[in-house]
Formats: sequence, C-alpha cells, structure tokens
Amino acid sequence: MNNLLVAQSGGPTVAINATLVGVLQGARVSTKVDKVYGAKNGIEGAINDNLIDLNELIKDTQALDTLTFTPSSALGSCRYKMKDWKVDDEPYKKIINTFKKHDIKYFIYIGGNDSMDTVDKLSEYCRVNNHDIYIMGGPKTVDNDLNLTDHCPGFGSAAKYIATTISELERDISVYDIPAVTIVEIMGRNAGWLTAASALARANGGPGPDLIYLCENVFDYDKFIQDIKDKLAIKPGLIVAISEGIKDSTGGYVSDSMSSGAVDNFGHKYIAGSARALEQLVREKIGCKVRAVELSLMQRSAAHIASETDIMESLMLGQKAFDCVVNNETGKMAAIKRLSDNPYRVEFTSVPVSEVANHEKIVPKEWITPEGNDVTEEMMTYLKPLIMGEINIKYENGIPKQYRLY
Amino acid sequence: MNNLLVAQSGGPTVAINATLVGVLQGARVSTKVDKVYGAKNGIEGAINDNLIDLNELIKDTQALDTLTFTPSSALGSCRYKMKDWKVDDEPYKKIINTFKKHDIKYFIYIGGNDSMDTVDKLSEYCRVNNHDIYIMGGPKTVDNDLNLTDHCPGFGSAAKYIATTISELERDISVYDIPAVTIVEIMGRNAGWLTAASALARANGGPGPDLIYLCENVFDYDKFIQDIKDKLAIKPGLIVAISEGIKDSTGGYVSDSMSSGAVDNFGHKYIAGSARALEQLVREKIGCKVRAVELSLMQRSAAHIASETDIMESLMLGQKAFDCVVNNETGKMAAIKRLSDNPYRVEFTSVPVSEVANHEKIVPKEWITPEGNDVTEEMMTYLKPLIMGEINIKYENGIPKQYRLY
Repeated sequence: MNNLLVAQSGGPTVAINATLVGVLQGARVSTKVDKVYGAKNGIEGAINDNLIDLNELIKDTQALDTLTFTPSSALGSCRYKMKDWKVDDEPYKKIINTFKKHDIKYFIYIGGNDSMDTVDKLSEYCRVNNHDIYIMGGPKTVDNDLNLTDHCPGFGSAAKYIATTISELERDISVYDIPAVTIVEIMGRNAGWLTAASALARANGGPGPDLIYLCENVFDYDKFIQDIKDKLAIKPGLIVAISEGIKDSTGGYVSDSMSSGAVDNFGHKYIAGSARALEQLVREKIGCKVRAVELSLMQRSAAHIASETDIMESLMLGQKAFDCVVNNETGKMAAIKRLSDNPYRVEFTSVPVSEVANHEKIVPKEWITPEGNDVTEEMMTYLKPLIMGEINIKYENGIPKQYRLY
Repeated sequence: MNNLLVAQSGGPTVAINATLVGVLQGARVSTKVDKVYGAKNGIEGAINDNLIDLNELIKDTQALDTLTFTPSSALGSCRYKMKDWKVDDEPYKKIINTFKKHDIKYFIYIGGNDSMDTVDKLSEYCRVNNHDIYIMGGPKTVDNDLNLTDHCPGFGSAAKYIATTISELERDISVYDIPAVTIVEIMGRNAGWLTAASALARANGGPGPDLIYLCENVFDYDKFIQDIKDKLAIKPGLIVAISEGIKDSTGGYVSDSMSSGAVDNFGHKYIAGSARALEQLVREKIGCKVRAVELSLMQRSAAHIASETDIMESLMLGQKAFDCVVNNETGKMAAIKRLSDNPYRVEFTSVPVSEVANHEKIVPKEWITPEGNDVTEEMMTYLKPLIMGEINIKYENGIPKQYRLY
C-alpha cells in the first residue's frame, strides 16, 4: 500500500482548501496512491496519530467543489514549530510511527514559512534515516512573503477583498463635506504586500487610498501628519492604508509605542492596533474627524469575493505538489513562476524548500515611491493579474455554501 | 415646468443609490415631470442652491444600472437637523427660493429618522404657507429602526454581509484546538437588528455565533463571563456577536464604562468600542486568547455582497415615492408592508411621515431569548427573506464597477 497524507498549517486563507482539493483531485485519478488521509491540526495530527479518512470525500465531486470555495483550513491548523531532530527526535519518531501504521509513503504539507521548515526538517530526517517517505510543501500565505515563488496562494483573494473594500470605503467616506481621515489597518508584520494591494482600488479610475504606508519603510510620525495636512488641503475625506507592522525609527512597532502608556480601569495595558494608535495621533495633532478601521480576520477569510486566478492557481499547485511527491520528489515546495505580466502567464514548478523555510520575501524598496507614502507602477503591474476573475460561489439561504470536514 | 428634486441624507448604505435610481426611472418614463435635479449633500444642497443636473444621467440606462449597485450616497449626504420653522424659518425660505428658482414642484428625500423629520417639517411649512410643492420621504437605514415599514432599505444587504462574514469568521476561528474567543462588534446604538442578523450565519447548519447580545437588553458583565465559560467548556473556539450600543445596568455604554480609565501617552482618553472593552474583560476574567473584530464601515458599504431582495425593494420604493409625489401626496414616506413570510410577499405603500420621524423601532423583547444571549425563531422567520438573492455585480479589473456622480 502506498498511501498519502495531507495536512494544513499556519494562518487560514481563502485558498488553502483549494490546494487541498488539488491534492485530492490528483489522488482521485492516480494509480500511484491507494488511500488518502488528512492529519488533523497540521503536523500535530501526524505526531498524535489523529488522522481523518478522506477516501469517501475524494469520490464526492460536489463536496470537492464546495470545499474549494470554503475559507480557512478544513483539516484544522497548528502553530507547532519542529525542533531540529538532532536536538529532539521524539516527535520525528512519532510521525514515522504514524506513517508506518497507515502505510503512508507520501506527505504533502500546505502552509507558510514554519510549515516549510517542517517539510525541510522532516524530509531530511527521512532521507538520512533511509525511510522510503517523500514530502512536498504546498505554499499558502496571505502575506505573500514566501521565497522562490512569484506569489502565494491566498494572497490574490485577500488582495481582491482589500481592493474592493477600500473602493467601497472610499465611496462611504466621500459623502460628507468635512475634513475626515479614515485609517485602514491591513495585515502584514514585516511584508507590506497586502497593504500595497489597497492601491488596486484605483484600478477603475477611482481615487483609492490617498496615502499608503508599508511596514518595509521606517514610519515617520511628523512626515505622516504633514502628508495628511497636505492632502486635507486638497480634499475633505481621506482614506489612508497602513500595514499593521509599521515601525518607527527606533525599530519598535507604532502600535506599541503609542499605546505603551494606556491602561484601563484594571491597570491592564490596552492593545491597540497601528491604525488606532495613529487615530489618536491625528486627533491630537490635527483635531479633525478620524476613524480607525481594521480589516482584521475578514481579509483572510472573505471567500465570497475570492480571486478566480488565486483559487485556480491554488488548486493547480495542489496538483503540482501531488505530481511531484508521487514521482518521489522530496524536500521541495510547489511554486509559481511568472512568465509574463500582460498577457499574464505562469508555470508551476518545484523549488528546494530549504531556500524557502525561514526566509521572508519583503517588498523591494524600488516598488515604494521615494516619498514613502505610495507604491510604484511596477508594483501595480505585479499585483493586477492576481485579483482577476470572480468565482461562481453557490449560495444557499442567502449565504455562501460551505463544506465542513468535521 | 414641473421639476423634481431628489436628495440623500444620513449614513450611507448599499441600497440608497438603488432608491435614487428608482426615482430616476420613474421620472424617465413619466409625463408629469420635466426636469430632474439632485441636491448635493442632502437638504444643505437645497438650502444653498447647490444642485446637480440629472437629466443626462436619466437617459443613460447603463449608468443607472451601475449606479444601482454602487454603495453610499452618490449625491453626498449631511447631518443637518432642521429647526421648527416657527422658531427659525430662514432655511425654509432659502429652500423655497431654490425650489422657485428651478421650478421644483416635487421633492423626494431619501434617508433615515432625521431626514423624515425634515420631510415632516418642510411639507407642513409648504402646506401652511400654500406653496404648491409636494414632498415624499424614501426610507433608508442599515439600522432597520424606522417606524411603519416592515423593514428598511439597506438593512437586508448589511444583514447579508454580516451573516456571510460571521460564517466565514467561524471557519477561520475553528482551526485551532485551543480556547479562544472572538467578539464581533456590529452596528446599532439603540436597535439590535443588525446584531440579530448574525444568527443567519447558521442558515445552512453551521454553528454561527455562539452567543448574541443585543443593545435592547441590559448587559450584565458577570452573566457574560459565565456564558463564555459555559460555552468554552463545550468547544474551544467561540464567536460572540454584540451590538456596539450595549449598555449596562447604569444605562451607560459598555464601551464608555470599560475605557474610562484608559489614557494614552498624551493623556488622551482611549475611545474603545464595546468589543474591545469586552476583549479586555475576557482577558482579565478568563485569560484565554481573545480578539475584538469590528465590522465597522464595511457592513454598510459592502455592495459586492448586496442582497438582491434589498436592492430590488429599494429600487421599487424609489419608484413608489415618485408615483406618490407626482400624484400630489405630501408629508408621507414610501414603505414596505409584509403580507406573508413564506412565500415572502410584500406590497409598497405610503405612510404618514410624522409617525416615522423621531421614532425608533427596536427589537421586541419577545424576539430575544429569555437568557438574553440569542434570538428566537420568530426573529429568524422575520430576517430570512431579507438576505435572499445575489446581484450580478459587474467587475472591471478585478474590482466592482462603480458610478460616480461627481
């Protein structure tokens, strides 16, 4: 028996189930795999022998279809970081026990940086210890910060949600004729790709965000206030996009520095986001109407406005990971290589996971304007194809249909 | 010349432009109206003679189509409250001057409570002073708190956004196997209709929100913490929906009471929402992972997931207001009367605006469960039809097309 195990890890996205479905579709028509299992809650499910039988699911094409468009990780997730096996090989032994018990020869792990680190370590462990087990990574992260792939599954859909939402918020804030600033906080601690995607709100000629601050640049409070004053001199309602992870010249998060003195009635520190911190600053320094908006979990879970490009690519990356692993590739990650921007063309490939794990691909400085408050045309050219296309979501009783594995 | 003026006021919604289009479609095929103008920024545009010529727009059916699905008030808005004309008739005189100057005989004002107060006062002023001017209100508010109409345009779309988003957030928070509480703050200072709509996330068998607290009930901190502890004993990931306007036994807002002691580095008070206040409380009393999510402006501007029922009804209410006003009805508001729940049937009518202005329709106590942490089946029966149907939004460059009047 040559069985396959698949698992999901890290923060959920809208596209991570599409990659799972890609793997399952591969297994459905392949002669190389007998049975397919899912590990519950990522690698922890493999360690604790907590598997789900997916063989019935594979035959149900309607369920696969619904699962493709269901947000978040259907198999659950974890935040488990594997130690080096030379330091502690206990979890590795447990995983191998699970694999042997269920005749698992192939393992596909869908996730971000930490998950690719697991793929790297576990595949090395198997190789060194002569286990006949092959392990591939499937990329996933809204942050778009994985190395060696043009972009990451989940990012395009989050970008489409952000662009659409900013264009809708722009309409909302433009109705009153008084000075007002709306500061929108977008995910990204170290990589500002999602914040950059706010610029796509201008795609059809709308004004989009008036100012954009990415976490790659040092955030200057005085410059920020001056930028706002300059813009308010031209138009009353401003919309400003900022990364949650913007840092000032001390290297500290803006959110921390502004909220460090604030405590509540119980003496507890307030945990403010960066937008809320800057809301306070604008109120203090300018005194106009100001509001902080956080796109929060919605930006990574709004499957109802997923990018068709993103979902289709995520599915194909799952199939690519499957193809690679059953052809005994190991220690690699399925990846996207962009061939051209316009027409948009890509190919799917596999890359050494050791060069992906523990790297972060941040926005190149040249794609941020010299003033540090917007993105360049190169960035727009890169982003545009990723939000193209809409998916035909099925609704039931007025809300999108979803598939729940458990 | 018998010309018509239309204006929009109050907080924006996804459906307020559909009502505007309903009015314009009425004018397009009617022999009773010569020219159509829009007042910029609500009644202020009428006071200051700041009008937009809409006669070209009316002929452009494609533009009307796009405008129908564009969120927020295309004509702008205001928060202007008219004083009684016996106290100060200056603005009334200015409005009449504008009307006379442009031969305006008909005026339709689309808005919420305050706008209906304007319709009430202005129509009385015209009647008493023998001006041959007829004034109708078009209802609009996400809060669903207008008297004498079964529900309000804009509410159904906001409810659909909330139900969909809660169902997506539920997927997101369910991936980890650790105790965690996500508190979602939903619009509504005095009326909890939108918060109640979170229950629609269960429509397809999903768990939806685990607990729901409306602002109509006195909020009890101890009971809230006990409710959460009880639920956490059964499942790890909880999602809790609360109204922004929940108040405790003193009658004060939960948001105010919790944040009163918190100041930032500048000594300024933190303005926390109710979810953020309760996030602090859960952290203090339970100590588990907890996160506040605010649906903020998105819930009233997410046109990309508008309810077809809502948009179509909003359009027809605009047409109804037009029909009424050109038949010399005045001091009334177009309204929806529900005939049956299943099949869902309504008729459009007109109601005396004096009985709408300055009233607030809140959730009946019987539609909240005795425990005060959920809604009843009666509420579900009322809500369900309002989010039915999806609209065929046109996308361009990956984001929804919008129409901008100016």
